[in-house]
Amino acid sequence: MKKYDSYKAKLSKIADLEYTLAVLGWDQETYMPEKGADFRAQQISTLSGIGHEMSVEKDLGELLKKLHKSKELDKKQSRNVEESYKDYKQSKKYTTEFVELLSKTTSECFQAWQKAKQQSDFKIFAPHFTKMVKLKRQEAEMLGYKKHPYNALLDQYEPGANVADLDILFKDVREQLVGFVKKIAAAKQNSDAFAHKHYDKDKQWNFGIDLLKQMHYDFEAGRQDISIHPFTTSFSPLDVRVTTKVIENNLKSMIWSCIHEGGHGLYEQGLPASQYGLPLGEAVSLGIHESQSRLWENNVGRGLPYWKANYKKLQGYFPEQLKSVTLDQFYKGINQVKPSLIRIEADEVTYHFHILVRYEIEKALMDGSVEVKDLPAFWNEHYKKYLGVSATKDSEGVLQDIHWSHGSIGYFPTYSLGSFYAAQFFYFASKEIKGLQQHIEKGNMLPLLNWLREKIHKHGKFYSAADLCKHVTGEKLNFKYFMNYATDKYSVIYNLK
Amino acid sequence: MKKYDSYKAKLSKIADLEYTLAVLGWDQETYMPEKGADFRAQQISTLSGIGHEMSVEKDLGELLKKLHKSKELDKKQSRNVEESYKDYKQSKKYTTEFVELLSKTTSECFQAWQKAKQQSDFKIFAPHFTKMVKLKRQEAEMLGYKKHPYNALLDQYEPGANVADLDILFKDVREQLVGFVKKIAAAKQNSDAFAHKHYDKDKQWNFGIDLLKQMHYDFEAGRQDISIHPFTTSFSPLDVRVTTKVIENNLKSMIWSCIHEGGHGLYEQGLPASQYGLPLGEAVSLGIHESQSRLWENNVGRGLPYWKANYKKLQGYFPEQLKSVTLDQFYKGINQVKPSLIRIEADEVTYHFHILVRYEIEKALMDGSVEVKDLPAFWNEHYKKYLGVSATKDSEGVLQDIHWSHGSIGYFPTYSLGSFYAAQFFYFASKEIKGLQQHIEKGNMLPLLNWLREKIHKHGKFYSAADLCKHVTGEKLNFKYFMNYATDKYSVIYNLK
Repeated sequence: MKKYDSYKAKLSKIADLEYTLAVLGWDQETYMPEKGADFRAQQISTLSGIGHEMSVEKDLGELLKKLHKSKELDKKQSRNVEESYKDYKQSKKYTTEFVELLSKTTSECFQAWQKAKQQSDFKIFAPHFTKMVKLKRQEAEMLGYKKHPYNALLDQYEPGANVADLDILFKDVREQLVGFVKKIAAAKQNSDAFAHKHYDKDKQWNFGIDLLKQMHYDFEAGRQDISIHPFTTSFSPLDVRVTTKVIENNLKSMIWSCIHEGGHGLYEQGLPASQYGLPLGEAVSLGIHESQSRLWENNVGRGLPYWKANYKKLQGYFPEQLKSVTLDQFYKGINQVKPSLIRIEADEVTYHFHILVRYEIEKALMDGSVEVKDLPAFWNEHYKKYLGVSATKDSEGVLQDIHWSHGSIGYFPTYSLGSFYAAQFFYFASKEIKGLQQHIEKGNMLPLLNWLREKIHKHGKFYSAADLCKHVTGEKLNFKYFMNYATDKYSVIYNLK
Repeated sequence: MKKYDSYKAKLSKIADLEYTLAVLGWDQETYMPEKGADFRAQQISTLSGIGHEMSVEKDLGELLKKLHKSKELDKKQSRNVEESYKDYKQSKKYTTEFVELLSKTTSECFQAWQKAKQQSDFKIFAPHFTKMVKLKRQEAEMLGYKKHPYNALLDQYEPGANVADLDILFKDVREQLVGFVKKIAAAKQNSDAFAHKHYDKDKQWNFGIDLLKQMHYDFEAGRQDISIHPFTTSFSPLDVRVTTKVIENNLKSMIWSCIHEGGHGLYEQGLPASQYGLPLGEAVSLGIHESQSRLWENNVGRGLPYWKANYKKLQGYFPEQLKSVTLDQFYKGINQVKPSLIRIEADEVTYHFHILVRYEIEKALMDGSVEVKDLPAFWNEHYKKYLGVSATKDSEGVLQDIHWSHGSIGYFPTYSLGSFYAAQFFYFASKEIKGLQQHIEKGNMLPLLNWLREKIHKHGKFYSAADLCKHVTGEKLNFKYFMNYATDKYSVIYNLK
């Protein structure tokens, strides 16, 4: 079909531009020297503008309109066209000027955040983030929304997500998790002091690479580098980059950032290259993306079978530090549940309180009930309320995350959704894969990876998040899978009744 | 002036795209995983096409035509417009299809060359390079030329260069250098065995970084990485990247590639950021660019004063290997003149025979008197003739250089031009900078760098190569400066009469 082919060719060129922007972004966060920032911001802005122009091109719109009505397309083709048409109509709402301005503001905001975090001074970040919030409010107006302006932004990361549903979800989470965390707090605590001894950076790095290889992350189609905040980015399914950070006196930081980003990376590497640039070559949503990283990070990577497979190797790297730590002590130590300041170092239970704070801030920023200058106070107040802790430095408080500097408002809730999807998927993986725990205990991750490839990765956007969940598990997202997983696991670790 | 501003804005956007292409190229040769190659080639091709479309845009052409006649521009503005208009008319000769095809072929050819070199098998490279040569012949026809199709390509790298002049130049070079090299061959030889002991890679790397810092290469506006073939690339004057390669049993390779690329890097960092995207923000020509790398590499970096400054530090890194090598032995060892196989490891005298071979091959490829499949034989025959050596492996022969895989035919002669310009510039630098040798002996490179900044770097393309040479030295390029430099230096080293 000629029309479908020219649609495909157009999308492929747009993807070339978008993946190029990803290269610029990757370099910016890994290797770019400091003085390069301003021209890089300008370059990203120009490329974003060109990309936007291509994605709202009139010819493309007419092609999509015709293809959308065509009866000659197969199921996959129809799905591609359907999603592309939706994207097209969404993109048309943006002016090129807005896209370029947003891109430029983002780069500047990111640079400011890096400095602000380093100097732990929110005032460096505030003027840039104020501009960003203003633009995001404008964006919500441009896109249109029902009920709450935040819904317009949420929908970009997790199609269908909205304040009404999330309010209920976070209420459930709070009600069920708060009690559980209290029970844990009353129980006998386990020490993780071993994780804060001195761990040589190079050895940590090498162990992280071992873990990625064991997960079958393909190093011929990817690589790992260092950045301030770990992330995954993709330039095609055949070039997927992950980053990590290595802290000398915190073994946990490197290990679970590697496994987490590795999970994202496997999803990207598992997308079909034949669908390059098309919706069926893309991840479903950020929530589903996060389900892949969380499943590996938590359900697999913080599990006992995983450490039965890997603890001896870790002890081999660090005999001095770990010789007197038994596997049981290690397992309990890495699964401490304890309210803390830093989201990415939080345990998998109290983690969702961190998201809750950010969710409330974002909602308030979007409806104007809080202003940027008041965020440090707002932040600490809410941390006190939900986690019982408050930051003494902005770098450990409101400045800790990269997301807002990127203009990613509406992104955080997908982290919680990701964990809940992960628990549900992993429950069914355990049911369907014969001897899954035993495979993991032997360090054989292939059965699980193949299951994920088959059930999730290879489909790209063929299913929506809700449909995929049904396709994989036979039912819609259900918080009980996470709650059951947490209850079962931590009742054993903390010896609860 | 409104017209000038909109010209400037357009050029700036084109530069954003071109520098982005440079980022893609840098990543391709430093960090990109193997499987990423195909999509990267496609991405580069798409971006090249877009860049080309922007550079031949009708509005830009009309703007340039008007500005070209304007009387309101100052000298610098006029010069920018003059060069841009020339570029515009040149670009108009290319079709977008040709640009995209050339870009795609280049990426594939580069990938094939990497494999071919690794396996030392010219047959892997031949079909891709055959396509490339065919495209290059087409390109010459598209551009137009007088007398020889090779002239069209030469002019792209060194405006004004042509076969007639180069034939005479290389004849002079041959006549004057051949006799001199024979005299040297008959003299007592110095050993460089010390350079082929085992040198730890990390220590070599650190010493290379020291040298770059001493040259005042700005690491806040650049960085060094590893690649198969060292190169310099720029994403703005504030983000200039150099690469090197480190070989354990060849100390020379790393040292002089660092100094060489550092020289290129200093030129790029010295271009005025205010002229970003405009001719006055760009290097004059490849010959002038090479004069900057050669001046640092040879006239400075292989000189006795330079090693008076740095030899103790080098011995400090490698006490075992160098404790019994005196400065005099080191200086003579690193300045061995001896015909050899590998261009980038050749001494600064026989080097020009390497260029001669490539020059003759390129001429022959362009006028069709040799075909790609016959290159290995042609290569070895000519190496035998001029250098008295011939390669036993293609990787050490016809496959040794990256240039042809990039489609860079017409590039090599600029290396010899660069050396000759360098000798002439350095002669005048030594005359004009009080105590230059003493500064260098103390490791103080700033007086020389400031002289280069002032005389050459800051002007961008304000002068043509010929005019710049006159501006800096009061006369046109004259081979005698190189010949005198070589004669003076090597008569002492080899104790010639």
